[in-house]
Amino acid sequence: MVSVLSSLSSSAIEQALQRLKFDGVLRSKFEVVLDFLDYSPALMPSVGRGAMAPKPGSVGYVVNLGNKFRAGRAVLAPAQPGTAEDPLMDDILETFYGFAPAELPRAVQSHRLAMVAENLSGELLERYIAQELEPLGWVWCSGSSVRAVDFIKHTPDGRTEWHALQVKSRNNTENSSSSAIRKGTDISKWWRFHAKKGRTNWDSFPVEAAGTLSEEGFRAYVRAAGEKFASKSRSEVSL
Amino acid sequence: MVSVLSSLSSSAIEQALQRLKFDGVLRSKFEVVLDFLDYSPALMPSVGRGAMAPKPGSVGYVVNLGNKFRAGRAVLAPAQPGTAEDPLMDDILETFYGFAPAELPRAVQSHRLAMVAENLSGELLERYIAQELEPLGWVWCSGSSVRAVDFIKHTPDGRTEWHALQVKSRNNTENSSSSAIRKGTDISKWWRFHAKKGRTNWDSFPVEAAGTLSEEGFRAYVRAAGEKFASKSRSEVSL
Repeated sequence: MVSVLSSLSSSAIEQALQRLKFDGVLRSKFEVVLDFLDYSPALMPSVGRGAMAPKPGSVGYVVNLGNKFRAGRAVLAPAQPGTAEDPLMDDILETFYGFAPAELPRAVQSHRLAMVAENLSGELLERYIAQELEPLGWVWCSGSSVRAVDFIKHTPDGRTEWHALQVKSRNNTENSSSSAIRKGTDISKWWRFHAKKGRTNWDSFPVEAAGTLSEEGFRAYVRAAGEKFASKSRSEVSL
Repeated sequence: MVSVLSSLSSSAIEQALQRLKFDGVLRSKFEVVLDFLDYSPALMPSVGRGAMAPKPGSVGYVVNLGNKFRAGRAVLAPAQPGTAEDPLMDDILETFYGFAPAELPRAVQSHRLAMVAENLSGELLERYIAQELEPLGWVWCSGSSVRAVDFIKHTPDGRTEWHALQVKSRNNTENSSSSAIRKGTDISKWWRFHAKKGRTNWDSFPVEAAGTLSEEGFRAYVRAAGEKFASKSRSEVSL
């Protein structure tokens, strides 16, 4: 497979990086992402839609990718449901599952918020792990800047060139396809919660050095993030 | 592609059909499914798991497929959540979404029931449509007896050999792969509910003759099915 990024001259990459105006730390992390994509070009995500999406490897592509990478690290705001309510759900919950009609609005709203909360839990999981892994030399591929991979570390030792890590909230969510990962990349996959057994999996976290990661730590991190968000919302409301 | 079923002798198919003990109507419908799979063997589903799954085309395969086909038409019992509760959801709903701690148990339960209710809505949709289409000569591929296709009709007219129909509850659910469908099959795809716009789509139902299908009819069908189930549950409880 031909690397698309390596067809970019270093001056073109430099041009993209200058347009991104990253600070030094973020820039060096993003450069690791670019190196990894140069090694495994099949993992380059698409950035932008349709005919307007810049071609992989172009200056515009690197700029868009860098913006995704940065945006993925911005302060997390919980999403609101983006889909319309289907009144059929009321019929099913009432007649099959015995909900009282008066309960239905809150039940349906709870469900819709829980759906977006589940997405949020995946975001929070990556952030919590990133806090621990980045000081150990890993780079968080924030903003889905790499397909099917969440963390990478350059580890040239003759046998492998890169370590990659994919983390999932639950063992039963679909695996992102990682068949495109190039030989010479040692990929580990990990999930936090076993959907049927109800147990968490921190004991098996594949990066040994990240020994302080724990379920208690993660839940404390989530509550702190939520409370920070809530207090900010309140102060914004009170303006 | 070599048809696997056509490697079955008609006496082997007869043997499988006798073991299934279908009544005449169900048998003739299932024979249409077998004919379609013989035409498009790439759409044969797997039946059973792992090393114990019978080989496509074997007598055991046809028996298992027939049992799926029949079970898919049995009286519908609403599923209960099959996964464990993740306490992290409580943290997120409380801190990010402002739920009061006392509300959390019911909110989480509502969400879990709504998840299985959404699966049920897809089942109910197929059944409602089947009521209308089967009298028109279509066969409902009940029990996921055909991959990526829900209804079929044999329509040899020189140009096409079969009509096939895939129905979905929502426009944004993933499309089953139908790339395996053989040329000579005219496949239509339809969805009921537009997730963003919130409108239903019965006006565009692709089988013109099925003109009485409507959102009102579907919702009445769902409520009647739910009430029938609830009254049966009550009478069972009172025994």
